[in-house]
Amino acid sequence: MESESLLTNIRVVLVEPLYSGNIGSVCRAMANMGLSDLTLVNPKQIRDEARWMACHASDILENRTVCGSLAEAVGDCGAVMGTSARDGLYRRHALSPREWAPRALQSAQTGKVALVFGREDSGLNNEELALCTQIVRIPTTTAYRSLNLAQAVMVFCYEIFVAADLYEPPREKSEEAPAALRERMVALWRAMLLNVGFMEPEKADHMMFGLRRIFSRGAWTEDDVSILMGVARQVEWAVENRGEETLTKLETERNNERIPAQP
Amino acid sequence: MESESLLTNIRVVLVEPLYSGNIGSVCRAMANMGLSDLTLVNPKQIRDEARWMACHASDILENRTVCGSLAEAVGDCGAVMGTSARDGLYRRHALSPREWAPRALQSAQTGKVALVFGREDSGLNNEELALCTQIVRIPTTTAYRSLNLAQAVMVFCYEIFVAADLYEPPREKSEEAPAALRERMVALWRAMLLNVGFMEPEKADHMMFGLRRIFSRGAWTEDDVSILMGVARQVEWAVENRGEETLTKLETERNNERIPAQP
Repeated sequence: MESESLLTNIRVVLVEPLYSGNIGSVCRAMANMGLSDLTLVNPKQIRDEARWMACHASDILENRTVCGSLAEAVGDCGAVMGTSARDGLYRRHALSPREWAPRALQSAQTGKVALVFGREDSGLNNEELALCTQIVRIPTTTAYRSLNLAQAVMVFCYEIFVAADLYEPPREKSEEAPAALRERMVALWRAMLLNVGFMEPEKADHMMFGLRRIFSRGAWTEDDVSILMGVARQVEWAVENRGEETLTKLETERNNERIPAQP
Repeated sequence: MESESLLTNIRVVLVEPLYSGNIGSVCRAMANMGLSDLTLVNPKQIRDEARWMACHASDILENRTVCGSLAEAVGDCGAVMGTSARDGLYRRHALSPREWAPRALQSAQTGKVALVFGREDSGLNNEELALCTQIVRIPTTTAYRSLNLAQAVMVFCYEIFVAADLYEPPREKSEEAPAALRERMVALWRAMLLNVGFMEPEKADHMMFGLRRIFSRGAWTEDDVSILMGVARQVEWAVENRGEETLTKLETERNNERIPAQP
């Protein structure tokens, strides 16, 4: 199955969410990460904040499913993953989001997968946790374990999107510069730096090591190397020609001075 | 350095955040993941929503730093990582949060690291991106690339917290150069490259972006920056003084020619 289809099999279930703004933010996170199936269990009245926070993901909000119980919401799901910030009974075998994501994708190969989030203030109760085939927990500091609901949803959506490997990063236009081209650049810089008096000839090898270290700190493209070669060539040109320019200017001034001297 | 101390060296910078609720949500995400240094650049008036959304992380909100410009906010930072949802010029080398986290921790060994987020509606402008040593981007669907600000902050905070648990960084001898020193170097190079005629004044901003990209491919130490500042200064000197030298040499030759002409 294609990765996109796998993601359509992941259902986000919010149990008795209290704040409309959070519901909207959940929609946005889902849209950013390619999920679309939102199910709410006994939500309060949904207020305008939901639409504001959903931003360009209002279609997910409009197409939500509403159920009267968690059992109903996950009735057609194979894997049911319940999130919990707390330790304790039934929560000891919690997976991290990174461990969870590939398992969820595997289950999504053959059916619907539910990812269940509890109430903002009290999470999932024991009866609801009992419906889950797996507990998942986001790692946090011990000082502050409880995440904002929509941010917790984002962490899971992000992990599943990364695991699904859907992302096609923008391509680098120019290829990484080959060693021979880089060496030509280094040779140009060496000549230029000697010419401008930046280093004595007997110190040049040493100094060029320092510059090579700077030059090779990251991968450089051919465009990058072109720019640096251009800099070295232009400096050489300027050093040679500014002398001529200065001379021409001074000679012109002298000739001009001579003119009134010739009556 | 202990992982906890490393996290205190990571600064979250919000540039001109529009919504107080987002600022509060950012505080909560930071507290969940062990970060504490929040800096705001030109925020609007901070309303009650910030405290409501910060929840139990109001100490981060109270202890925020406020600056008048991004340059000021990151002046003491080595690595400056800027987030961008957009493609395009200078954003091609964007790292994913997962690639970014170990690098940020490595830089945090020797100094402050800034993670910079732009405005909710328009992100970071080009001048602000220019201050960044690295662009980072959260993978998303192509259909909806723009994340809620606080959710984007959570993804990075989560990645760095997870990475901090595993990370054993290598040691760098010289400290990473702070942004203020790097900016002085960039200003010197800009002046020099204009002086030698490498670029037209109206193309200077564009070309300096290219050079900044080259200059920030890796973490640079203060020694590295000293070398590059020395190069720019010496080129300026050579361009100014070779003219004089050439003139002196030519005048000496002329005077020498005159001697045999005087019998």
